[in-house]
Amino acid sequence: MDKDYLNSLRHSCSHLLAAAVLELYPNAKPTLGPPIDDGFYYDFDFSAPISENDLPRIEEKMNQLIKVWRGFERSEVPSDEAKQRYANNPYKRELIEEFSAQGQTISFYKAGDFEDLCRGGHVENPSKELKHFKLLSVAGAYWRGSEKNKMLTRIYGTAFPTKEELEARLKMLEEAKKRDHRVIGKALHLFTFDNLAGKGLPLWLPHGTIMKDEVEKYAKEMEERFGYIRVSTPHVGKKELFETSGHLPYYADSMYPPMKMDDGVYYLKAMNCPHHHLIYRAGPKSYRDLPLRLAEYGTVYRNELSGTLAGLLRVRSLQMNDAHVYCRKDQIKDEIERVLALTLALFKTFGLKEYWFRLSKWDPANKEKYIDEPDNWTYAEAVLRDVLKASGEKYEEVDNEAAFYGPKIDVQFKSAVGREETMSTIQLDFAAKKRFRLVYTDQTGVENNEVFVIHRAPLSTHERFMAFLIEHYAGAFPVWLSPVQVVVLPVKTDHNDSAHTFADELKKEGIRVSMDDSNETIGNKIRKASGEKIPYQLVFGDKEINSDELMVRVRGEKEQEKMTRQEFLARVTQEIAIRA
Amino acid sequence: MDKDYLNSLRHSCSHLLAAAVLELYPNAKPTLGPPIDDGFYYDFDFSAPISENDLPRIEEKMNQLIKVWRGFERSEVPSDEAKQRYANNPYKRELIEEFSAQGQTISFYKAGDFEDLCRGGHVENPSKELKHFKLLSVAGAYWRGSEKNKMLTRIYGTAFPTKEELEARLKMLEEAKKRDHRVIGKALHLFTFDNLAGKGLPLWLPHGTIMKDEVEKYAKEMEERFGYIRVSTPHVGKKELFETSGHLPYYADSMYPPMKMDDGVYYLKAMNCPHHHLIYRAGPKSYRDLPLRLAEYGTVYRNELSGTLAGLLRVRSLQMNDAHVYCRKDQIKDEIERVLALTLALFKTFGLKEYWFRLSKWDPANKEKYIDEPDNWTYAEAVLRDVLKASGEKYEEVDNEAAFYGPKIDVQFKSAVGREETMSTIQLDFAAKKRFRLVYTDQTGVENNEVFVIHRAPLSTHERFMAFLIEHYAGAFPVWLSPVQVVVLPVKTDHNDSAHTFADELKKEGIRVSMDDSNETIGNKIRKASGEKIPYQLVFGDKEINSDELMVRVRGEKEQEKMTRQEFLARVTQEIAIRA
Repeated sequence: MDKDYLNSLRHSCSHLLAAAVLELYPNAKPTLGPPIDDGFYYDFDFSAPISENDLPRIEEKMNQLIKVWRGFERSEVPSDEAKQRYANNPYKRELIEEFSAQGQTISFYKAGDFEDLCRGGHVENPSKELKHFKLLSVAGAYWRGSEKNKMLTRIYGTAFPTKEELEARLKMLEEAKKRDHRVIGKALHLFTFDNLAGKGLPLWLPHGTIMKDEVEKYAKEMEERFGYIRVSTPHVGKKELFETSGHLPYYADSMYPPMKMDDGVYYLKAMNCPHHHLIYRAGPKSYRDLPLRLAEYGTVYRNELSGTLAGLLRVRSLQMNDAHVYCRKDQIKDEIERVLALTLALFKTFGLKEYWFRLSKWDPANKEKYIDEPDNWTYAEAVLRDVLKASGEKYEEVDNEAAFYGPKIDVQFKSAVGREETMSTIQLDFAAKKRFRLVYTDQTGVENNEVFVIHRAPLSTHERFMAFLIEHYAGAFPVWLSPVQVVVLPVKTDHNDSAHTFADELKKEGIRVSMDDSNETIGNKIRKASGEKIPYQLVFGDKEINSDELMVRVRGEKEQEKMTRQEFLARVTQEIAIRA
Repeated sequence: MDKDYLNSLRHSCSHLLAAAVLELYPNAKPTLGPPIDDGFYYDFDFSAPISENDLPRIEEKMNQLIKVWRGFERSEVPSDEAKQRYANNPYKRELIEEFSAQGQTISFYKAGDFEDLCRGGHVENPSKELKHFKLLSVAGAYWRGSEKNKMLTRIYGTAFPTKEELEARLKMLEEAKKRDHRVIGKALHLFTFDNLAGKGLPLWLPHGTIMKDEVEKYAKEMEERFGYIRVSTPHVGKKELFETSGHLPYYADSMYPPMKMDDGVYYLKAMNCPHHHLIYRAGPKSYRDLPLRLAEYGTVYRNELSGTLAGLLRVRSLQMNDAHVYCRKDQIKDEIERVLALTLALFKTFGLKEYWFRLSKWDPANKEKYIDEPDNWTYAEAVLRDVLKASGEKYEEVDNEAAFYGPKIDVQFKSAVGREETMSTIQLDFAAKKRFRLVYTDQTGVENNEVFVIHRAPLSTHERFMAFLIEHYAGAFPVWLSPVQVVVLPVKTDHNDSAHTFADELKKEGIRVSMDDSNETIGNKIRKASGEKIPYQLVFGDKEINSDELMVRVRGEKEQEKMTRQEFLARVTQEIAIRA
């Protein structure tokens, strides 16, 4: 699909949206309405709040208006006159002033009866081309993105050249809605938010905690197998630490506000690396100590604006699957290979198949953006490329996208609903060694100050990864991750005692079992357990009490499976053991 | 020992200390010098810093002066004259002004040539009675304990009526020094502090992290066995949360400073309970859901003054072995019993034998200090007493020592060096239910608002418990807790390969093995491993390579033990499994 054409189409649609809104809400003040990756939006200052219930009416009006939009007519207007046109709209006036201060021409574009301050970029024949659009949602957005400004109302929509494309997108959005981690997370009691606790700070409920702990346990096992050792560092640190690391002052806006204590100023940490560097240099290191792989499921804090927070995907407290590998220059290749191998092993377990890598390189001409160690850049980029090539995995290279301190490999994947996302990055860092004086003694007893650091977090943060897991599995988690693995459902209360005894046997084997011994009918019990997406349901009646055979209701299967208790136990424990 | 006499003796000794200091440092300004539990101290404002190296000289002077101290002579002095005597000492003048403002008589006590502002309380015949004293240490201390004031120099000392008692105490202090968790923690690379990271914020090194994780894993296993479920809550919370809980404004000084975000003011949490209460009420609860036992190794933050921080014993970030049990009134007894049983099981594993309980009760007359629910107090105190009685454990009762919100059981113990300490408390809380509207639906469908909360943390915090473990075991930890459980020591580099193979076999069985394949002599390797207090050393030479038999050096044993590889493996895995 031609990206430019799509942008013109969607930009035209945002005009149409503004036209419809002004017909229906004459007091609304239009501000800005650009095309975006998935469609477009337009921000308005409404005199009374609107909701998603109002979208169909606006859409209807758009469909009416578009009939007579034959084209966009451009006119240039002196800035004073332009400002007069917006006597009641301070937002547009602010834009006009900015444009004229920059010496830009002030242009308007008119279609039908609606004229808007605009730089252009529309389709030629809107009434013909602009047919397949849809308004999607309403959200709050600060004027120009700053929380110091007024909160406006943003209407999101999308548009496509053909009906088929629009329908495919809407279907994808529908699927995404069904898999929405906020909806499933609530239904399955995995996590919750509470205004008293604060925004962007999830409270993990018992079932969510089980899953989070399982992911963590698995990550730790794998990291141990890959030669990592674990450390544990505080969540706060002194201002001077973050000055040393370079987070302050540049990153200050993203950090929580400073806290003044009797011996200086403290901050909640935004990264784990500064603390890990302190641990590296807590004792002398020799060439024999390298590579040193320090791992921690560390928690970091980001001062996100409250209006931008969204479920687990944008939070203010993030527990990272973090580790830092300290190595010599000649060990970089092995270590990057090792990180890649670990990443792929983890992905396999979670059934992640559609992924590829992106090697982000520096731009030698851009002296300000990148640390000035040309030899290291050349060497490191070649090493990363070699590793990616040898891996046989799909990868691409992009220029001028590296981190300040070194090249990186982004791990991209396509989500269950077809969205492209970055799961994690592997970053090579040659700035830390200077900032933190990271050194080792080489074989000849000489101090070497070329310690390279690899930052990596293959499983991202608990928050993002849980959101991913929920969407990926649509709540039907594999047995090893399921908060409840087996539910025992006694047919009548007479069966409760025997059912409890059997459930206890399963528990003894380390299986997470729940029991529904309520007074509900067995039909209701089954419906409830199915809603909770428990992998195995065991209906327990006279037959089951008096024999060794079970009729197992396996999640997602229509037919029940007949097996002995021993067979069932073997199957479940095996699935847990191999994390199937 | 008569506590009053001991206080008089020690108070007299603090006069003697001040006298000696003034002889040696005429410019020093004496301030206050009270007796304390273990001895006494005196705070001075020195014109130049002194150190512990100066103590012997001061002690010598004390021994000289005491010879002529026949008694303490009291005199009363008008406040103006008293202030004139301290023309150069603003501290004493401040005290005098305070005393006279309160209408108190200003008295001085003189012994030998030294006279001090004092309210009395001395021994009658100092030169005879005050013979067995010792100066112990030097520390910084703010004038009147406030960080807004000047930092003074505090000299600690102790005194006893007899030589034997003094020597016993000094021996205990010597032992405490050898077991000092800061010294051992450093020698064994368990944790470190770094000024860049900030004060009171330990960085757990890999070996300390292993131990901390082992303790946590054990606590979690036991808690699961005792019916707890786990949750996970953020480290920060909104101001309103801590107002609801009552921590603000009363506890504000102990909390970290507030952080203003775009949607309100946030604090680092000082307790986990408010967040757990939010989880309790995140969904409707029925009588069938109770008791609900929510556990979390949660981290809390205390804004301690930097001058008061000491190793792991006083820190600013504490990870608590926390849990809250929510129960109905008729379940209190069972739940307290269960907490006690869990506590005793944990103690047994850690070899804690000298412990007893202290039941802290309210004072019905003290309406301000305690929540006004007399029936609940009567009921709860009786239940707690019954449980303690039935347990057969040693316990005492104290009046007017309860928490505001309910009676509590403190768990006291005698440390390895004979110090009495509180390990943890079990607190019953009947205030939370109102503050957080904690309710459940009873069997008749009616809402019941009598949800009782038990706060408990049998293993205290990771920080305090690790300090305890280090002191308790003097660094020679049981196998299951040891960061390195077995070290393999090849006799010569020729033996390295076979030694590695054998080490790998042990690792596969889950044993933490290290290998010293350096070029050192076997003697040096053994010495190093012994210094690291590794439970088992395996010297690996020709004999071991060519046979199935090992000569095992068991920590603390003089003779090596002969056993087959299989026997050794079985022994170690068994000790780990049973946490021996």
